[in-house]
Amino acid sequence: MYRTNTCGELRLADANREVTLAGWVSKIRRMGGMTFIDLRDRYGITQLSFNQEVNHDLCEQANKLGREWVIQVTGRVMERSSKNSNIPTGDIEIIVSELNVLNSSKTPPFTIETETDGGDELRMKYRYLDLRRNVVRKNLELRHRMAFETRSYLNEKNFMEVETPVLIGSTPEGARDFVVPSRMNQGEFYALPQSPQLFKQLLMVSGFDRYFQIVKCFRDEDLRADRQPEFTQIDCEMSFVDQNDVLNLFEGLTKHLFKTIKGVDIPDFPRISYADAMKFYGSDKPDTRFEMRFTEIKELTAGVGFGIFDSSEYVGAICAEGCASYTRKQVDELTDFVKRPQIGALGLIYVRYNEDGSIKSSVDKFYNEEILKKWLVKCNAKPGDLLLVLAGETEKTQKQLNELRLEMGTRLGLRDKENYKCLWVVDFPLLEKDEELGRFFAKHHPFTSPKAEDIALLDSDAGAVRANAYDLVINGVEIGGGSIRIHDSSLQKKMFTVLGFTDEQAEAQFGFLMKAFQYGAPPHGGIAFGLDRFVSIFAGLDSIRDTIAFPKNTAGRDVMIDAPSTVTIEQLDELGIMLKPAESN
Amino acid sequence: MYRTNTCGELRLADANREVTLAGWVSKIRRMGGMTFIDLRDRYGITQLSFNQEVNHDLCEQANKLGREWVIQVTGRVMERSSKNSNIPTGDIEIIVSELNVLNSSKTPPFTIETETDGGDELRMKYRYLDLRRNVVRKNLELRHRMAFETRSYLNEKNFMEVETPVLIGSTPEGARDFVVPSRMNQGEFYALPQSPQLFKQLLMVSGFDRYFQIVKCFRDEDLRADRQPEFTQIDCEMSFVDQNDVLNLFEGLTKHLFKTIKGVDIPDFPRISYADAMKFYGSDKPDTRFEMRFTEIKELTAGVGFGIFDSSEYVGAICAEGCASYTRKQVDELTDFVKRPQIGALGLIYVRYNEDGSIKSSVDKFYNEEILKKWLVKCNAKPGDLLLVLAGETEKTQKQLNELRLEMGTRLGLRDKENYKCLWVVDFPLLEKDEELGRFFAKHHPFTSPKAEDIALLDSDAGAVRANAYDLVINGVEIGGGSIRIHDSSLQKKMFTVLGFTDEQAEAQFGFLMKAFQYGAPPHGGIAFGLDRFVSIFAGLDSIRDTIAFPKNTAGRDVMIDAPSTVTIEQLDELGIMLKPAESN
Repeated sequence: MYRTNTCGELRLADANREVTLAGWVSKIRRMGGMTFIDLRDRYGITQLSFNQEVNHDLCEQANKLGREWVIQVTGRVMERSSKNSNIPTGDIEIIVSELNVLNSSKTPPFTIETETDGGDELRMKYRYLDLRRNVVRKNLELRHRMAFETRSYLNEKNFMEVETPVLIGSTPEGARDFVVPSRMNQGEFYALPQSPQLFKQLLMVSGFDRYFQIVKCFRDEDLRADRQPEFTQIDCEMSFVDQNDVLNLFEGLTKHLFKTIKGVDIPDFPRISYADAMKFYGSDKPDTRFEMRFTEIKELTAGVGFGIFDSSEYVGAICAEGCASYTRKQVDELTDFVKRPQIGALGLIYVRYNEDGSIKSSVDKFYNEEILKKWLVKCNAKPGDLLLVLAGETEKTQKQLNELRLEMGTRLGLRDKENYKCLWVVDFPLLEKDEELGRFFAKHHPFTSPKAEDIALLDSDAGAVRANAYDLVINGVEIGGGSIRIHDSSLQKKMFTVLGFTDEQAEAQFGFLMKAFQYGAPPHGGIAFGLDRFVSIFAGLDSIRDTIAFPKNTAGRDVMIDAPSTVTIEQLDELGIMLKPAESN
Repeated sequence: MYRTNTCGELRLADANREVTLAGWVSKIRRMGGMTFIDLRDRYGITQLSFNQEVNHDLCEQANKLGREWVIQVTGRVMERSSKNSNIPTGDIEIIVSELNVLNSSKTPPFTIETETDGGDELRMKYRYLDLRRNVVRKNLELRHRMAFETRSYLNEKNFMEVETPVLIGSTPEGARDFVVPSRMNQGEFYALPQSPQLFKQLLMVSGFDRYFQIVKCFRDEDLRADRQPEFTQIDCEMSFVDQNDVLNLFEGLTKHLFKTIKGVDIPDFPRISYADAMKFYGSDKPDTRFEMRFTEIKELTAGVGFGIFDSSEYVGAICAEGCASYTRKQVDELTDFVKRPQIGALGLIYVRYNEDGSIKSSVDKFYNEEILKKWLVKCNAKPGDLLLVLAGETEKTQKQLNELRLEMGTRLGLRDKENYKCLWVVDFPLLEKDEELGRFFAKHHPFTSPKAEDIALLDSDAGAVRANAYDLVINGVEIGGGSIRIHDSSLQKKMFTVLGFTDEQAEAQFGFLMKAFQYGAPPHGGIAFGLDRFVSIFAGLDSIRDTIAFPKNTAGRDVMIDAPSTVTIEQLDELGIMLKPAESN
């Protein structure tokens, strides 16, 4: 036995107990004839005390220790003379009587502190040392607790966790698969799953009724900001449910997590249609920590000969509370912001509603005060507010206005990370038209059920058909999404027709699931949450990377273990594959 | 909402309640003017009742249903006139007033019953229907509960579940890796982990203190009986522990699982050394549900000129209680058994200790009754017992005697699947000599710690060095194994030397971990359990296959989804690989 206690648990009540602790040397301080060591483990920090006069040799031994050495000490718990109220063990220290070096340590390439001097690259290369930092490990502890509480909640609700295979078949649709050459079936490949979608629907056909799995999924995509080639889903499916059943159950799960882990009671989640989300926020994942909804003012801009507005399909405004006092410079910054290529607006129009009731606008050459007043009234603006207006093609302009809204929210400090606003976005369109190819694609996937009342539209106005599909959005981040699935094979056939599949193509791509569905598929639906992102929201992180113990960089490399790497010719031979000569690539 | 209740929960106390159920038509029986349907879901079976006289149309509708159709019914709970005590809902039935067909079903290719008429191949092809059978689904429910209870126990003990990467680097040692070509790093490959060994040790360096993970692992091996290319481990590691700490904690976990899931209290697990396991059972995973230990009788066989025994390094016996009455035919069967090529004994010698005290043996031409009596006494035989004796080279003969012992245990009904005997096998040899190559290999892995008291032997008699390595064995099946790791870098260097590595080779293969160990590695150790096998023991299954929702066959194929499969040339091009032409394979 290496220790009687951890470095986080001793208190004043333990005074005079003889204890043995083990951990890492975090700090050494020499003061007069005393040496103090902060001994650190996962559970906390305990101060060790050595007295030159009382035990000269032991104190000398302590003085020779280095940062991050691993030691074991035995000693007596004593009340400290100068207490440290910042740490739970701050009332006591250990008067050490025995010191045992368990391992030495080279000087780490960066400091193992909350604020480290290590750069990103160095920290990733020495990830095992980075993980020793409290702030980083805390994120992994949080992840553990979220996964654990998710399992507890779902187990309580009769969900069974079922492991689905990692070595599956490659599917032609969707994102790119990672593939695994099969040695025993040369010329053939497994694929790593992008999601267990197929298997969880099969489990419903099997009558498993309530399935979940916290599961690794894989996508061989170019890794733009904050994507990982392997990521973790909380994947769920239920039978004999409609959309309301699914939303209620997983709203319950989300509230449970907020309650047990953050100690926060979240009120019932608003449910907003996709159409309204686009209309009021220009986004299917609106950040509802602040209002600042869009107001369309097109009809109030007509008839004065202002060409830009007249020729625009859409004129929309947001009202920035208390911003009438913005300087010219500030307004110019906002104009530059919306004109950035990533956003792409041609310009920004403002209307200042000054505190004294006077109105000033960048378009007051065209619109008199009476008209501008109408805009302000429609936008519920008060004296002191600033109206920001964008115009153009509807969808594009809504997206630009969304970016502007978020920027204003940030500038006004309305996006507090500890303020959690959850909502369901529902009634997503079933289909998305690829204008170039002139055909429809499934917005979610081809098994998503259209709303019963919209089925008739499949023939006449397919683009208007709404789906029983839903997303959970927290603070403007999509945390999860799912749908009620089609379980009726004639409706499924209809879907394939709308999606432009021939019977043969449908059979080739989805025949397997279709076959299973002929043997008594129950009504079913589900949802999947991105665990990495869910944890990052709880941790207040901007990136998912620090929610993952050993993440990969944007080139898909693990720089710590230096993977991927080359393999031997013999290995490739056994697999029946070879590298393509460089020139033919 | 599709149902007010499941098919498993209604009782007599619910009588007269109006309920709505949904599920699968399991059986239809027509009796006189009545139609009875067994409606099935995951939770149970409820009888539905239709009366031709009371509601003719509805009853006709019911008569048209087929097996495995999915229906929804509304009706009143009534006490049954003829109760069925075999099912929990057997006291009631539903007098149906409304019937709604949710989905039809083709006739399944085999019956969805406990005893099915479907053959193995058919059941695997239609695994989603096989899983609908109660007996199969129960195994997956058991697996869920075991995984859940494992997590609860370990969470309670301060273990953190940390996900380690699935896309890692390929390691040259050990079993064959599955590899994954990297598109972004052409010519390079990820490997799928055979275990998270490296990462869990790094997490100890990171100070995570107690790690676990229920995790998929992968081995591209030829699949002999009861192996799967992907399998699941309960993988654990702890810091600041010695062997006793690890054994005690995971003995606690095992007891917890037996208690919570099987309702069985298991006494403290015996701990037996590897040497004793070989000596008394001829196996490092002895089945201790029955005694029948080996007795070595070599010294009692010498000096009478029986060449076979005289020239044998080892003569060992087992005493089969009450088997003196075995017929000639039965003894011949046992002789044939040990002479099978898989076992390879040259013959079997018996000594019958008849009830009347007389002794009869196949070698009584060589050994008089006095000597044979000595054998019997040494083996603790009683009148009525049968001694079975094998001779030859020690290790080989012990293995043969082990097979014979297990066979006798089976014949005597001593291997009851519901009788659980757990034990720890400890003190495994650190090294194993490959006689052909004339060098030592690590029996566990190169990071396993030798016993402190044996370290001196590393130079003089490396083969005799025992390791701090241990296996958990239940009913003769190895469920898990692990070791205390080396954390001292000079001892680690020594190990590499003993294993015949040059410094350069050690650096190339293990440099990465060695580097991490220079930054304050704590003493640590761990264990990994095979979840599939653990579940199969609890389920009383002989194979792990039915503990897995979607297993692969011995050719590594998933016959249900028909994977692996070919991929397109474009996919291979993107990955920078090509298939080797057939002739060059």
